[in-house]
Amino acid sequence: MNDVMIIGTVALDTIETPFGKVERALGGSATYASYAASFFSKPAIVSVVGRDFPGEYLELIKSRNIDTKGIQVEGKTFHWDGYYEFDMNQAKTKKTELNSLADFKVRVPDSYKKIKNVFLANIDPAHQLEILSQMEKPELIVLDTMNFWISSKRDALMKIIGMADIFVLNDGEARQLFETSNLVKAAKDALALGPKAVIIKKGEHGALLFENDKHFSAPGYPLEVIKDPTGCGDCFGGAIIGYLSKAGKSDHSTLRKAIIYGSVVASYNAEDFSLNRLKTLTNSDIDKRYREFEDMREF
Amino acid sequence: MNDVMIIGTVALDTIETPFGKVERALGGSATYASYAASFFSKPAIVSVVGRDFPGEYLELIKSRNIDTKGIQVEGKTFHWDGYYEFDMNQAKTKKTELNSLADFKVRVPDSYKKIKNVFLANIDPAHQLEILSQMEKPELIVLDTMNFWISSKRDALMKIIGMADIFVLNDGEARQLFETSNLVKAAKDALALGPKAVIIKKGEHGALLFENDKHFSAPGYPLEVIKDPTGCGDCFGGAIIGYLSKAGKSDHSTLRKAIIYGSVVASYNAEDFSLNRLKTLTNSDIDKRYREFEDMREF
Repeated sequence: MNDVMIIGTVALDTIETPFGKVERALGGSATYASYAASFFSKPAIVSVVGRDFPGEYLELIKSRNIDTKGIQVEGKTFHWDGYYEFDMNQAKTKKTELNSLADFKVRVPDSYKKIKNVFLANIDPAHQLEILSQMEKPELIVLDTMNFWISSKRDALMKIIGMADIFVLNDGEARQLFETSNLVKAAKDALALGPKAVIIKKGEHGALLFENDKHFSAPGYPLEVIKDPTGCGDCFGGAIIGYLSKAGKSDHSTLRKAIIYGSVVASYNAEDFSLNRLKTLTNSDIDKRYREFEDMREF
Repeated sequence: MNDVMIIGTVALDTIETPFGKVERALGGSATYASYAASFFSKPAIVSVVGRDFPGEYLELIKSRNIDTKGIQVEGKTFHWDGYYEFDMNQAKTKKTELNSLADFKVRVPDSYKKIKNVFLANIDPAHQLEILSQMEKPELIVLDTMNFWISSKRDALMKIIGMADIFVLNDGEARQLFETSNLVKAAKDALALGPKAVIIKKGEHGALLFENDKHFSAPGYPLEVIKDPTGCGDCFGGAIIGYLSKAGKSDHSTLRKAIIYGSVVASYNAEDFSLNRLKTLTNSDIDKRYREFEDMREF
């Protein structure tokens, strides 16, 4: 029985970084998020791919016991072509081909409708709103987004923020959305929209968690080589909802642990292109790095 | 008996931020650093001011039991005129009048020469080298610098880094000095120059400590209003050497605590212009915020 439902993109990524290049590699927010979640729970995906989507990619996703029956097949697969330069925190887009994503009609399979934990990974906020209307009674809704939707779909985004329990965004998005350079202020503004918790991702600088009168600061993992940061934010969110589902609660103390698990999986993901590092990742690797996180913030 | 000697600037600062403006306010790296150190130890300053330096500013420094006999009086006081915009991490300079700092001849008073703990606060690396040649046998040398010296006095800076036990610099300086965007690599390169420890300040994102096979990540304090960040880096370094002197050791575990004390004093300093917040700061305020740091990184 699946316990986490994830809506987001399943994509082909062409990516160049100072450490190499991949073409039409497996990517997408739902791919990374579900893969990360699978270390803690049994995720199910709602998304769309094209008829050109390689069978081996689908097999890789399924190999983690991820339910893919919610992945529709239509036309051509969404393709992102981008690169990173000296500053690996900043993805640059060369080309975005929406393809089958442009006409994506969200359809939740009946067998998903009672799933209690929902992750709205990065995708059009209109799709995020639509999927909630098809779910029966989710108990925990975690929302991710990106800068593109802040500028192009602000109204839908504000509406979906109000429906989320936990809102995850990065520092640049927080500053943009709430028009302040101060992340503490931005987090307060986000909480005022409805979520019980706001998590601000800061890449190499770690992550912040804000609840009403509580605050947590998670360190970043000191990676000497970051080959490709694509998907790290998705892994972070996916591992968080996966861990929360496994824990069966989302109180402040559990959220702190979830954020560390999210940081662990995201840090591994940055070590190689596409899902290459995650493919060989084990729960014992995750536990080992979790303990390193414990050690490096102790004083 | 003084236990910490600090060389750096004692300055008049004219500063504008989105939260206000001060003219010819008390500033300078030695001022902030010694004031911060005074909460843990008995600092002594080596610096120079002009005949225009207000007596009340000197009284304020002395009121913390800071030894000022190493402050020479010549000509006009060093004056920095700068501002901050939306991004409070980035100081911009309108005008720098070196004045008496231009011809500063470093002279260490005899009564300072046996002091064991030396903080080379931000000042010309030539002055930092000169003062070490006048000290008898310092046991702990902590070095701070700034981007200006990286470009203009690189050779002297590299030499002094090799003489320091602990090298403190900010993330932008680390990236500039070691020509890498990766702070872990930059820290390794810095350690290879000789210091036993490297501390990278990241402003709102906290600080990192690197020793050979050890790593510590200190969180930033979540301030909702940062009125004026001037001097925060100096306070950070000053509190660190003050705490290390008080502890009588500088092993890895003590360094971690010192960095948190440094972060605490720096975070208070950002709450108001010049030394206005530090003036009323108490050791009980410091202990209170230290406990908040303990809480906010727990998971």
